[in-house]
Amino acid sequence: MSGIEYMRKMMAGELPSSGMAELLNLKLVEVSEGRAVFTVLADERHYNGLGIAHGGLAATLLDSALGCAINAMMPAGKIFTTLEMKINYVRPITRESGEVRCEANVIHVGGRVATAEGRIMDEGGKLYAHGTATCMLFRP
Amino acid sequence: MSGIEYMRKMMAGELPSSGMAELLNLKLVEVSEGRAVFTVLADERHYNGLGIAHGGLAATLLDSALGCAINAMMPAGKIFTTLEMKINYVRPITRESGEVRCEANVIHVGGRVATAEGRIMDEGGKLYAHGTATCMLFRP
Amino acid sequence: MSGIEYMRKMMAGELPSSGMAELLNLKLVEVSEGRAVFTVLADERHYNGLGIAHGGLAATLLDSALGCAINAMMPAGKIFTTLEMKINYVRPITRESGEVRCEANVIHVGGRVATAEGRIMDEGGKLYAHGTATCMLFRP
Amino acid sequence: MSGIEYMRKMMAGELPSSGMAELLNLKLVEVSEGRAVFTVLADERHYNGLGIAHGGLAATLLDSALGCAINAMMPAGKIFTTLEMKINYVRPITRESGEVRCEANVIHVGGRVATAEGRIMDEGGKLYAHGTATCMLFRP
Repeated sequence: MSGIEYMRKMMAGELPSSGMAELLNLKLVEVSEGRAVFTVLADERHYNGLGIAHGGLAATLLDSALGCAINAMMPAGKIFTTLEMKINYVRPITRESGEVRCEANVIHVGGRVATAEGRIMDEGGKLYAHGTATCMLFRP
Repeated sequence: MSGIEYMRKMMAGELPSSGMAELLNLKLVEVSEGRAVFTVLADERHYNGLGIAHGGLAATLLDSALGCAINAMMPAGKIFTTLEMKINYVRPITRESGEVRCEANVIHVGGRVATAEGRIMDEGGKLYAHGTATCMLFRP
Repeated sequence: MSGIEYMRKMMAGELPSSGMAELLNLKLVEVSEGRAVFTVLADERHYNGLGIAHGGLAATLLDSALGCAINAMMPAGKIFTTLEMKINYVRPITRESGEVRCEANVIHVGGRVATAEGRIMDEGGKLYAHGTATCMLFRP
Repeated sequence: MSGIEYMRKMMAGELPSSGMAELLNLKLVEVSEGRAVFTVLADERHYNGLGIAHGGLAATLLDSALGCAINAMMPAGKIFTTLEMKINYVRPITRESGEVRCEANVIHVGGRVATAEGRIMDEGGKLYAHGTATCMLFRP
């Protein structure tokens, strides 16, 4: 199965979503070639001690979307592993932010390496965080 | 209260730990001037679709430890906000890894900006991930 | 003088370009609100020991363009300093690449922090490197 | 020839240093297993328009040292390419800083990926910049 087929089945509920996505309530809502979108509605369970969502929530949302955007370029038999990710925090996410979405798009896909960028925004398009990832591609 | 006093009270159970730490089962186990250590025992709830811990678990653990290491340099009345974080994934974390710990130490603390680095290791000292963060410091 | 006025004077030759731009032969060729473009024609003076341009050439080109894109948002009396920069190297730059250009655009400009992203491409649009920077803004 | 042998010959003047090292006046002054040190004495040729060394100088120094630290782990027949680099700027470098040195050390070396970190300091140990790189390893 190609990466995009796998994720479409997951989105359709034909494959189970991951433990972490369940735990944090992250939802894959869109996938196409080189692009993926995840959403989350933050609440107190995601908060740090300061009354705002923990940076780890945005990092997990971004990591999910970046990985899926790159996976959506993988043919059957080719897989990826994330080597590194970098995130910039622009505004705090709170339950008042409403549903936020991370739109991720590939920047570069070569034979052995791929990169992608993503932005986390609310429904009005206000930016909360953005970042990039570097992945290594290989055939197991 | 200074940052280090606040975190010592949290570690002693006199202040509640955060929602996200509860949700992911992250524990602050050590704090001293410019240094903090968090641990987690990964299980299936933290997994991605590939049978290993989601990158967001390591990112959240690292973000927690880096922030606390910097907070442990803040005098009363001064706070920090994380501007950006970067993480390198070196090995997958699984439930077979046992408890992993993130040791974070400040690299630089100036008047307005601080940086810190952290490494995630298992009990045998094997490295799983490492990274850095940049924080802005201010008086509210 | 605002940031954009300063850079337009520099582009017009009414203000001297910097030592580093002279040394590496970097040219500012375009500036508008939140956007700047620098070019370079790589040659052996920019090479590392492997017969390709040193990563520092792309890093310097990117740092220049990102800083100018952010500076092009600064009103008179407000300045910026770069806190951190991250660059992904996608392909080697050589003298056969011809003139490469780094197009940088701001992602976020707040009261105290700004971020920007940039991509280095050749005349055919082939990507060589990309990256981001985080800057702190202040009034001296 | 292994990576460390190659660099020792370069340090001894038996192999030419690179064009970029000559142009910016960077010197490799120490190499051992997983470790490399480069120095530079900044002057006006390295300046940006603000009377301090361009961020590209520190980035090039860091990129050189990180790459050599990783190269100093490569056996004969194995080479590396830098996928990404990240630098934090802590203080401006000026000609008054005197000679600054970048000490780089590997963090992780696996079969296909290696990471390293480096710090730029003056002779008194004052920190100017720090950063990390991710490299891919392969046999050509």
